[in-house]
Amino acid sequence: MKKNVLIIGAGGVAQVVAHKCAQNNDVLGDIHIASRTVDKCHDIVKSVLDKKALKKPGVIEAHQLDALDIEATKALISRTRSQIVINVGSSFINMSVLEACIQTGVAYIDTAIHEEPEKICETPPWYGNYEWKRRERCEKAGITAVLGAGFDPGVVNAYAALAVEEYFDEVSSIDIIDINAGSHGKYFATNFDPEINFREFTGVVYSWQNSQWQTNKMFEVSRTDDLPVVGEFTSYLSGHDELHSLSRNLNVPDIRFWMGFGEHYINVFTVLQSLGLLSEQPVTTAEGLEVVPLKVVKAVLPDPSSLAPNYEGKTCIGDLVKGTKDGEEREIFIYNVADHKEAFEEVGSQGISYTAGVPAVAAAMLIARGTWDVHKMVNIEELPPQPFLGLLNQMGLQTSIRDENGDRDLSFDDWVPTPVAATRMASKR
Amino acid sequence: MKKNVLIIGAGGVAQVVAHKCAQNNDVLGDIHIASRTVDKCHDIVKSVLDKKALKKPGVIEAHQLDALDIEATKALISRTRSQIVINVGSSFINMSVLEACIQTGVAYIDTAIHEEPEKICETPPWYGNYEWKRRERCEKAGITAVLGAGFDPGVVNAYAALAVEEYFDEVSSIDIIDINAGSHGKYFATNFDPEINFREFTGVVYSWQNSQWQTNKMFEVSRTDDLPVVGEFTSYLSGHDELHSLSRNLNVPDIRFWMGFGEHYINVFTVLQSLGLLSEQPVTTAEGLEVVPLKVVKAVLPDPSSLAPNYEGKTCIGDLVKGTKDGEEREIFIYNVADHKEAFEEVGSQGISYTAGVPAVAAAMLIARGTWDVHKMVNIEELPPQPFLGLLNQMGLQTSIRDENGDRDLSFDDWVPTPVAATRMASKR
Repeated sequence: MKKNVLIIGAGGVAQVVAHKCAQNNDVLGDIHIASRTVDKCHDIVKSVLDKKALKKPGVIEAHQLDALDIEATKALISRTRSQIVINVGSSFINMSVLEACIQTGVAYIDTAIHEEPEKICETPPWYGNYEWKRRERCEKAGITAVLGAGFDPGVVNAYAALAVEEYFDEVSSIDIIDINAGSHGKYFATNFDPEINFREFTGVVYSWQNSQWQTNKMFEVSRTDDLPVVGEFTSYLSGHDELHSLSRNLNVPDIRFWMGFGEHYINVFTVLQSLGLLSEQPVTTAEGLEVVPLKVVKAVLPDPSSLAPNYEGKTCIGDLVKGTKDGEEREIFIYNVADHKEAFEEVGSQGISYTAGVPAVAAAMLIARGTWDVHKMVNIEELPPQPFLGLLNQMGLQTSIRDENGDRDLSFDDWVPTPVAATRMASKR
Repeated sequence: MKKNVLIIGAGGVAQVVAHKCAQNNDVLGDIHIASRTVDKCHDIVKSVLDKKALKKPGVIEAHQLDALDIEATKALISRTRSQIVINVGSSFINMSVLEACIQTGVAYIDTAIHEEPEKICETPPWYGNYEWKRRERCEKAGITAVLGAGFDPGVVNAYAALAVEEYFDEVSSIDIIDINAGSHGKYFATNFDPEINFREFTGVVYSWQNSQWQTNKMFEVSRTDDLPVVGEFTSYLSGHDELHSLSRNLNVPDIRFWMGFGEHYINVFTVLQSLGLLSEQPVTTAEGLEVVPLKVVKAVLPDPSSLAPNYEGKTCIGDLVKGTKDGEEREIFIYNVADHKEAFEEVGSQGISYTAGVPAVAAAMLIARGTWDVHKMVNIEELPPQPFLGLLNQMGLQTSIRDENGDRDLSFDDWVPTPVAATRMASKR
């Protein structure tokens, strides 16, 4: 049993993580929140206390930390006796935080792939460039490192694993569809860090098709689906973290990611992109100042966490899976619908942050309880999905399914490890 | 007779000015070009020499100059024995260059109103904020200062004066229409310094209507005209320099400026403007770097002078004037059509730079010859328009008219000062 959680980061997702840790501090123990800007951590602590979110009396503390400083991170882990680190800071700090966890022997969780500031869209599989290079060291040191434990990547990887395990004999394609049908009422805003958000779309679009990497340009390929609750939506073939592990861990020839965008978003993105304002490479002004255009765009856009109070509407994110079962072709859609307003009322963040933050806490709880404490580095689809999805049903993210038998919620209450899952879990130990 | 010209600035307009001065160095004498970046001046000198533009053997030299440094500017004026300064640098340097001219007793010409970097759209009339405050000092010192001697402001002011003087007993409205029907083949670019260009459209739109200032938002009011050569075009009520002098110097109740924009330009502008990327006020990036968004936009956009080689098509800029003559209502359009490709072939710049630069050299020649050497500060409409327009006919900018008698070129060859003009000129001495 591990306990005491160090949350690194103080944005909208960190806010959700802190609230959910507080709601489950009987399992997770002390809660520490660290970020470069300690004021943001204090705000989160205040928000947790204001909402009386702590399940039982306990510790919740703010800390100043430059998480690129490995020694400082190690010192904070030791001083707070944290056994689980939930890293929801910038994607640029992942490898230094992981290093601090390896060196201190504590569990590591993140929700997005590592990135280097001046590189975009590196060679696939992306996990091979940074994370998986530390796989052996994690295994040797017995470190549990759960990669990409947000919603996408994260829950959608669990949906994929569930489909492969329970719903098909053979899967031919997995299309992950991410629709935000909500509205924040601003002219334009991104739902999380604009820098990370735009970096997802400015490079080549990698998808896994016919068991190999295919490249496209952003907004080149689209699909339109009639989805549960949110209705008809157009989404675009996009590059995304989870393709880079699912393609390796599941034997599925077609794995694609589709992100929903409205025409207005695409227009703004296209203008900024075409002008070179989304570039991560510095330019020099006439006055000789060197500046990265993308960082200026980030500076003028609304802070994503400021969107929450007025955000309305719902998100629908899920896996459309095709294949055969008992010799019959079938198609299922495993998904979650989240509501921006409900998220804000519960934890003070909007729905996108909510769907990303809650799963990270569920992963921490499964590590704390031992169910997922596998003492190695894994992506979500390598872990049994049922305890994760079952816990998420209780924590505010209900899993549903739409198939030939209709549209309904899934329950995992009566799940007991099947031989397949038991074998898989055994192989992790 | 004044001679020897100091050109300040080294952009696309300065390139035109240098070529046209060279083509007329029998009148203008030595040519000196000064800018913060001396390499740009050397490039212009080289271009003039390559085209063998000097009419007779003479001096053309490049100089490094920070034109905000009044003492340095004075020293350069003295050292080069320049008697006429053509200021086609950034609008931010106008008042320091004018100050250097007043202190050294030489003539001053500019093509755009003075601006302070952190102020946009000050109180009308704009000339009252900076230029006209130096009017008395110019008169006392006998300094000829010709303000706004480009095309618009500049030639369009002369068109207005010509209409008032020759074509109407009473003018009810002047609508200045500026259409660039050319294409540069880039995704997006501005035709002159993006910083100055965008600053024209980000503030309130002032227009002179019913003999008072009216305010609108950019792109709020449009008109569509079927214009000579370029055909049907939509233009938008815009704020512009010339309204701020014409409203005071001519007794005309409605004076408006209309700038033609395509849908693509408006879309890009709207996105940038709505996001705050056209702001002249600094923002701070997450890393703590203070930066003016507009300067970053300028840094990523194509250098306007780089557009010239591939620019095709024509511009049409003119004054649509309505009023009465001999008791009859009439409407005339006095205009010029310029060709981007022809401009590039002649002087290595595109048509927008050409139409702005040639009139400044015509003004310099009229000062050199004495015709416009009025020993005071004036806007173009205060000077006799005929010698100016006649000279421009010879220099590559033909004036045409469309009225109830058809569409034809205007000639000023047989112009002799009329009593009105003679009085006006006398009053300047």
